[in-house]
Amino acid sequence: VLSDTFKILIATDVHLGYLDKDAIRGSDTYNTLDEILKCAKTNQVDFILLGGDLFHDNKPSRRCLHNCITMLRKYCMGDSPIHFNILSDQTINFNTTQFPWVNYQDENLNISIPVFSIHGNHDDPTGAEGLCALDLLSASGLVNHFGHSQSVERIEISPILMQKGNTKLALYGLGSIPDERLYRMFVNNQVTMFRPKEDQDEWFNLFTIHQNRSKHGPTNYIPEQFLDDFLDLVVWGHEHECLIAPTRNEQQLFYVTQPGSSVATSLSPGEATKKHIGLLRVKGRKMNLQKIPLKTVRQFFIQDVVLADYEDLFTPDTPQVTKKVEDLCYAKVIEMLEEAERERLGCPLTPEKPLIRLRVDYSGGFEAFNTSRFSQKFVDRVANPKDIIHFLRRREQKENIKDEVNVDYSKLLKPTAAEGLRVEDLVKQYFEVAEQKVQLSLLTEQGMGKAIQEFVDKDEKDAIQELITYQLEKTQRHLQARGVTTEQDIDAEIQKFRDSKKNTAEEENEIKEAINRAKAHRLERGDEPLDPDIASEFADVSMNSDEDSVLFPPPTRGRGRGRGSRGGGGRGRGRGQSKVLRSCLLIISIELLTIEC
Amino acid sequence: VLSDTFKILIATDVHLGYLDKDAIRGSDTYNTLDEILKCAKTNQVDFILLGGDLFHDNKPSRRCLHNCITMLRKYCMGDSPIHFNILSDQTINFNTTQFPWVNYQDENLNISIPVFSIHGNHDDPTGAEGLCALDLLSASGLVNHFGHSQSVERIEISPILMQKGNTKLALYGLGSIPDERLYRMFVNNQVTMFRPKEDQDEWFNLFTIHQNRSKHGPTNYIPEQFLDDFLDLVVWGHEHECLIAPTRNEQQLFYVTQPGSSVATSLSPGEATKKHIGLLRVKGRKMNLQKIPLKTVRQFFIQDVVLADYEDLFTPDTPQVTKKVEDLCYAKVIEMLEEAERERLGCPLTPEKPLIRLRVDYSGGFEAFNTSRFSQKFVDRVANPKDIIHFLRRREQKENIKDEVNVDYSKLLKPTAAEGLRVEDLVKQYFEVAEQKVQLSLLTEQGMGKAIQEFVDKDEKDAIQELITYQLEKTQRHLQARGVTTEQDIDAEIQKFRDSKKNTAEEENEIKEAINRAKAHRLERGDEPLDPDIASEFADVSMNSDEDSVLFPPPTRGRGRGRGSRGGGGRGRGRGQSKVLRSCLLIISIELLTIEC
Repeated sequence: VLSDTFKILIATDVHLGYLDKDAIRGSDTYNTLDEILKCAKTNQVDFILLGGDLFHDNKPSRRCLHNCITMLRKYCMGDSPIHFNILSDQTINFNTTQFPWVNYQDENLNISIPVFSIHGNHDDPTGAEGLCALDLLSASGLVNHFGHSQSVERIEISPILMQKGNTKLALYGLGSIPDERLYRMFVNNQVTMFRPKEDQDEWFNLFTIHQNRSKHGPTNYIPEQFLDDFLDLVVWGHEHECLIAPTRNEQQLFYVTQPGSSVATSLSPGEATKKHIGLLRVKGRKMNLQKIPLKTVRQFFIQDVVLADYEDLFTPDTPQVTKKVEDLCYAKVIEMLEEAERERLGCPLTPEKPLIRLRVDYSGGFEAFNTSRFSQKFVDRVANPKDIIHFLRRREQKENIKDEVNVDYSKLLKPTAAEGLRVEDLVKQYFEVAEQKVQLSLLTEQGMGKAIQEFVDKDEKDAIQELITYQLEKTQRHLQARGVTTEQDIDAEIQKFRDSKKNTAEEENEIKEAINRAKAHRLERGDEPLDPDIASEFADVSMNSDEDSVLFPPPTRGRGRGRGSRGGGGRGRGRGQSKVLRSCLLIISIELLTIEC
Repeated sequence: VLSDTFKILIATDVHLGYLDKDAIRGSDTYNTLDEILKCAKTNQVDFILLGGDLFHDNKPSRRCLHNCITMLRKYCMGDSPIHFNILSDQTINFNTTQFPWVNYQDENLNISIPVFSIHGNHDDPTGAEGLCALDLLSASGLVNHFGHSQSVERIEISPILMQKGNTKLALYGLGSIPDERLYRMFVNNQVTMFRPKEDQDEWFNLFTIHQNRSKHGPTNYIPEQFLDDFLDLVVWGHEHECLIAPTRNEQQLFYVTQPGSSVATSLSPGEATKKHIGLLRVKGRKMNLQKIPLKTVRQFFIQDVVLADYEDLFTPDTPQVTKKVEDLCYAKVIEMLEEAERERLGCPLTPEKPLIRLRVDYSGGFEAFNTSRFSQKFVDRVANPKDIIHFLRRREQKENIKDEVNVDYSKLLKPTAAEGLRVEDLVKQYFEVAEQKVQLSLLTEQGMGKAIQEFVDKDEKDAIQELITYQLEKTQRHLQARGVTTEQDIDAEIQKFRDSKKNTAEEENEIKEAINRAKAHRLERGDEPLDPDIASEFADVSMNSDEDSVLFPPPTRGRGRGRGSRGGGGRGRGRGQSKVLRSCLLIISIELLTIEC
């Protein structure tokens, strides 16, 4: 008797090849993919579902591709029979290869575990052919790449219809798209999810998406309520924090699981959450999701220290205060190391050296100590000795920033409002406040033309994309002010603007090229990462979901989940992005003057 | 009844991805690989044998890999049974994957045509893992990569022993190695080809190699007589001229076939020879090689014009002589175009626009005309309108050069001598003459440190490699002069020198990095190719077999084969390489002073 239960291994953001060349961490991502595939085999799953960013680099290194191909061939080929059928039109489901059928139905391949994957923002399609790294795997028959929408204007998602025994599973997927663009398409009702005509209620509807779930900007994420309410479960990729236990969206009445990445690609609190993958069972329309902890993942501990809180130990005027601060930090790190060691007991697969991050808020007149000497003490025990300590001045800057160029979006987007909000209102409010911000930016920034050359990188494409769209919409309002009021008129004017740039694709290519050029320059000069001291300063406008998501819980969530205990504040890349943002604003605004005048 | 005849499709130097982005020629290499694979399928061959440089770029583009994978899966997978067995230890034959067995014996893959390939100098292994692009294909099970020697000191080649019916085939292969290093290993007797112990005389011994066959420098090629005389047939890759009809080596009593590239990667005469692949039949120890012309290859016509030969039409003093010269060239090009059109009649697969090259020797006071205007006239009819005309001053320079820094190797390597020569003598003679040359270089070159930054590229690695070895050997002689005479002493001293550089790998990496840096610089600056006028000047020290081979027939060949009719002289990259050579000499010589003093 055939089982009616689909067993599906879900994982996402494997980021294969991340820090590929690091002497300590270089093999981490490979070891974890091995663990994931082995787990799928051990559990005899029907298939593996990946939520994007299987690869960290858009153009993975040879080693990375070789390892990936080798592992997939090792674990996913073999004699175990496949117990489910595909009922949908596969030429529509698998539209990126010359072999538009699921790999296990290929007569020349003996597949034991089919892998289904959408692409992420890291391994997204590029070039004239619109190919991504996954497509090399799908051409070889090792992965079934699905959810690749070819159009930039309209998205139509046809599910892969699967049947196992009496269970019917409709698998929907949408590969990564710049959040802002997708947001707009949702708003304009250009996203359609097709449903099977017959027995609609019998299908379990599973959707995989790779977008910002946390709110990084007014339209730079995808609110859950945009998604169709016929869905049963959404597997949300891109967000790195493991929140794999399904949470129910009370409006749309579906569940969302966020497996999180299987490797920490930043030293932010969200990445410190224990990493898991999921074993999803679907029978009829019932489901069960079993969390499986990953054993090969390098431990990561993070703590915050606010020096001003230690008045009983020292103040900025205490003699040898800097030494005392360093001693305090040393003790904190040792404490984390001991905790790591205890936890690792009996876990032979877990790498020995943990990742350690101590965020030191030295507001109030304290001085930073020499971190390179500090690092030396932990070279043998910590995987990231060079960047254990992160100095920041959170308290002092929190207020200043809000008075300056940043918009406090939270003021206009109250949690309760956002949930029930009409999207149109939200957009309108945003532009009203953002307008002031832009003018401020234009007034206060000088010589920003150069900044874009210096700080842009891959992850900021989204930010740039958002800005272009933002400016287009700003232009719309200018046009309205000039009496161009109907939607048709506006569209016509925008079309003119686009035509004047020849076409959008060309525009995008220009930007990509500029980014690549800038990146090459920076790599060549061997520029250091941004000064961490100033990094937190602009964290509120940070856009990079991969890295910062957990710092800014979206207003629609966080009801008593106790996330606040991790503390707020920013880290990392904030400043660079902010500069880029403002540079772009400047540049694009200047270009738009031709229309606006 | 099973057949006793092996049917083997032989091809080499497909250079997949060459000019991938060219609007006209961008698909040429893909079309031709498609033709080759289709031909293999139509002829129901037992296997395909490739002689290296399947890929043009060490790191092929995504499009290139995707196309290659797709075509291999399309043509080489399927139900046709394989009629030969492999008797050798496959873990030795296939040592670059975690799947050390021939792909058609993999239970998870249904292979109809196994492909066996060695790597070339373009797609050679790099990085700590020693992986090459072919290894991605072998990991996926699409190609059987063999002949990869892991050691830099000693090569041991174990054949793949195949049997079909009563025919026994021993397939030997050796992936590309810097010619100079391999030459030295042969001289030092460090190359061993293993033979099956039993029934040695029953085996047909087939060897595939990817090295310079033409003599590009005293030790910068592999003389045929280095190869074991038990061989029956050598398939020689790397050389682009199609000389596929097997030629007999009268000393070693084996045959050599040089299939040539399936795409012209330079506009030199050798590439103008009609391109073929071969259908090799082996039955017992008898063989037959059938030439199969390639239909998708873009036509290439080349002609030489020596202006001084047209005294009856014009001299440098004739009024409007430049116009007349241009008219003459125009007529010549039209003539070639008409010939191309006639030839193409009834060949629908052949691309419409041919490659055309007119080499104009304007020695004797003529002036070059404006080639960009000339190009315009052929934009619609020629695939390479921008570089149809190549001006050179061959006559004037031929003599001058020999008086300068170049060594006329032919003086010491007379054809007859080279054939019977004791290698040791040859090496000794070389160093005696070369020594003078080096000193000249050191005296005459200034500010060459910069040159290496400007002109090095991938193809020149070999040249640099040769120089390092050359200098090491030069050091040996210095040591001998200082009384360090036994081989053990010398080796010890050389070891010291190597140790002082930590290790050779590190050295090589340093050079590679320097090359990459230099390349990045050059690409960034968008440097133009070398001035063709001066290019021929140093052609005699040119090292790049891919491009120049046919210009310099080795002294061991050319017995009445009529190759002289193409004329001698050089083209292309000569000057840049010469600069690099000399820069290296300078740099390495300075480094070696520490030993020599």
